[in-house]
Amino acid sequence: MRAAVLHAPGDVRVEERPDPRIEQPTDAVIRLTATCVCGSDLWPYRGIEAINEPTQMGHEYVGVVEEVGSEVRTLAPGDFVVGSFVISDNTCEICRAGYQSRCVNGEFVSMTIGTQAEKARIPLADGTLVTTPDVPSDDLVPSLLTASDVLGTGWFAAVAADVQPGKTVAVVGDGAVGLLGVLAARQLGAERIIAFSRHESRQQLAREFGATDIVTTRGDEGVAEIKELTHGLGAHSVIEAVGTQESMMQAIRATRPGGHVGYVGVSHDVSLPGDELFFSAVHLHGGPAPVRRFLPELIDLITRRAIDPGKVFDLSLPLDQAAEGYRAMDERRAVKALLTV
Amino acid sequence: MRAAVLHAPGDVRVEERPDPRIEQPTDAVIRLTATCVCGSDLWPYRGIEAINEPTQMGHEYVGVVEEVGSEVRTLAPGDFVVGSFVISDNTCEICRAGYQSRCVNGEFVSMTIGTQAEKARIPLADGTLVTTPDVPSDDLVPSLLTASDVLGTGWFAAVAADVQPGKTVAVVGDGAVGLLGVLAARQLGAERIIAFSRHESRQQLAREFGATDIVTTRGDEGVAEIKELTHGLGAHSVIEAVGTQESMMQAIRATRPGGHVGYVGVSHDVSLPGDELFFSAVHLHGGPAPVRRFLPELIDLITRRAIDPGKVFDLSLPLDQAAEGYRAMDERRAVKALLTV
Repeated sequence: MRAAVLHAPGDVRVEERPDPRIEQPTDAVIRLTATCVCGSDLWPYRGIEAINEPTQMGHEYVGVVEEVGSEVRTLAPGDFVVGSFVISDNTCEICRAGYQSRCVNGEFVSMTIGTQAEKARIPLADGTLVTTPDVPSDDLVPSLLTASDVLGTGWFAAVAADVQPGKTVAVVGDGAVGLLGVLAARQLGAERIIAFSRHESRQQLAREFGATDIVTTRGDEGVAEIKELTHGLGAHSVIEAVGTQESMMQAIRATRPGGHVGYVGVSHDVSLPGDELFFSAVHLHGGPAPVRRFLPELIDLITRRAIDPGKVFDLSLPLDQAAEGYRAMDERRAVKALLTV
Repeated sequence: MRAAVLHAPGDVRVEERPDPRIEQPTDAVIRLTATCVCGSDLWPYRGIEAINEPTQMGHEYVGVVEEVGSEVRTLAPGDFVVGSFVISDNTCEICRAGYQSRCVNGEFVSMTIGTQAEKARIPLADGTLVTTPDVPSDDLVPSLLTASDVLGTGWFAAVAADVQPGKTVAVVGDGAVGLLGVLAARQLGAERIIAFSRHESRQQLAREFGATDIVTTRGDEGVAEIKELTHGLGAHSVIEAVGTQESMMQAIRATRPGGHVGYVGVSHDVSLPGDELFFSAVHLHGGPAPVRRFLPELIDLITRRAIDPGKVFDLSLPLDQAAEGYRAMDERRAVKALLTV
């Protein structure tokens, strides 16, 4: 099969790799319908995260089940499925508490599988994959694909930030996750949604997803604007979707005392000062999103056409042109690149 | 009046100070019945927090109203009152959300008043002071005094750590706040309460307050013990009541993914690594406790004799011997020193 492989920073090649096969009785093999490039793929692409060897990339996926292991009970060949970027058994105590991204038998798809490919072996298939009601029409595929990570992550961020009806939410980060955090906040009933963005096309998408205000400054200046918009108090809920020191401090400082920060940007060189955090009196929650928790609800919203998160894809390429997808996202020419298989 | 004044690290003197008077129409002047020495008073006593000038100490207090300003509506001379260590109007949006410790008109009693004294002026008296049903009998005074800070803070820590019926709670810190965190966890229905303590008398008190297990190790070794006691997962809820780098990391690491850390130890030189916090997937909440939120409930529990938090006082001295109270706590000869006025 063909798969996208990162050889070195900036060097993505689509090349031949062995077809995946059932290895464990709980595995499924799926044929990908679509996959995509994630903001987090850019960390190794930019050389900020080291890779030791040529690495098959990708962790977002929708597709059709080709084959299942002997112990798989809930899936059959021909089923259309969406899966999380973390494998989970969905039965352990941590999964049952809603934290499937930290399943005791969990593994990151990006570390061991790589779904920017024609096929993928999905371990713990019963726990990881969720079927759609029917094989979806083509126009629903991009939205379903977002559920695999960026929508599920933006949604978790909004839930972690305790977004509530009638409240004010600020969103730090105008990548796909931040934009879908806006969408989630709207769905969860937020009254006012303030998106930080300096890019006109992203501002436009933020507004389409439900942003009521756009703030173009950042850092302390951005925080001051949020305070001004909230009677000096700060937002009730802040979604952080970047993962840098600046973005984390911006999120914490933009939150009112007793408010909530939901942070999902993968932390890179972040160090939180205890005293400032203490006196901020905010709630802080985040981490790798337990997308599996939200998949049934998100699939339902998408197939009922209540939400259209697939709009975050502003570039669509065949898998063979994966390298161009990486380049376009690296250069911020694209918010998110979909790869058709 | 007489008051305890810190002149320099280790140098507490009880000396004559001007009697407080009504300055604002929202003030009350109270005559203290009892006050005490707080773990946080030891930071400046030990020279870890600098003081610029001789400073009147103390922020925990119960007493009798002597005089009220012209705008005070809910209090009258003769009322017995308990107040929080933070002044609050209890009407602003932040107060109404339950974060009176960050009231927009708030101030720390320790910074501007100092209640290790015969009398104190309490600003925003209607918002800050809560009356007891009757003038309490003498034996209830120590417990009511704890509500002013250490009980209210331990209680907030348990609430911030989302302590729930049937769950497992670990408590880092065996000072008065940690011990009363144990009591709070028991009242909130926790099934298993694991107290970290290496001091026999404190272990004994922890057990009296409801601890089911005692762990005598700390740091990574202590974390390993908690994991062993919880099927490898960690506690659902962890109360942090110290405020050091080691205690914070111990609390975070002892918490299961998706679990909650409630931290109330005032942070000193703490820096939280973003990547570890991210992948821990814990909820983190804490800060200066909004004691005012809990005062009515705590006063009710104490006056009904449902709880006896006053047991944390293992030393009682007249105000004139405040210096000995500081010494005993500094040398860990006493958990907490009550000062009678």
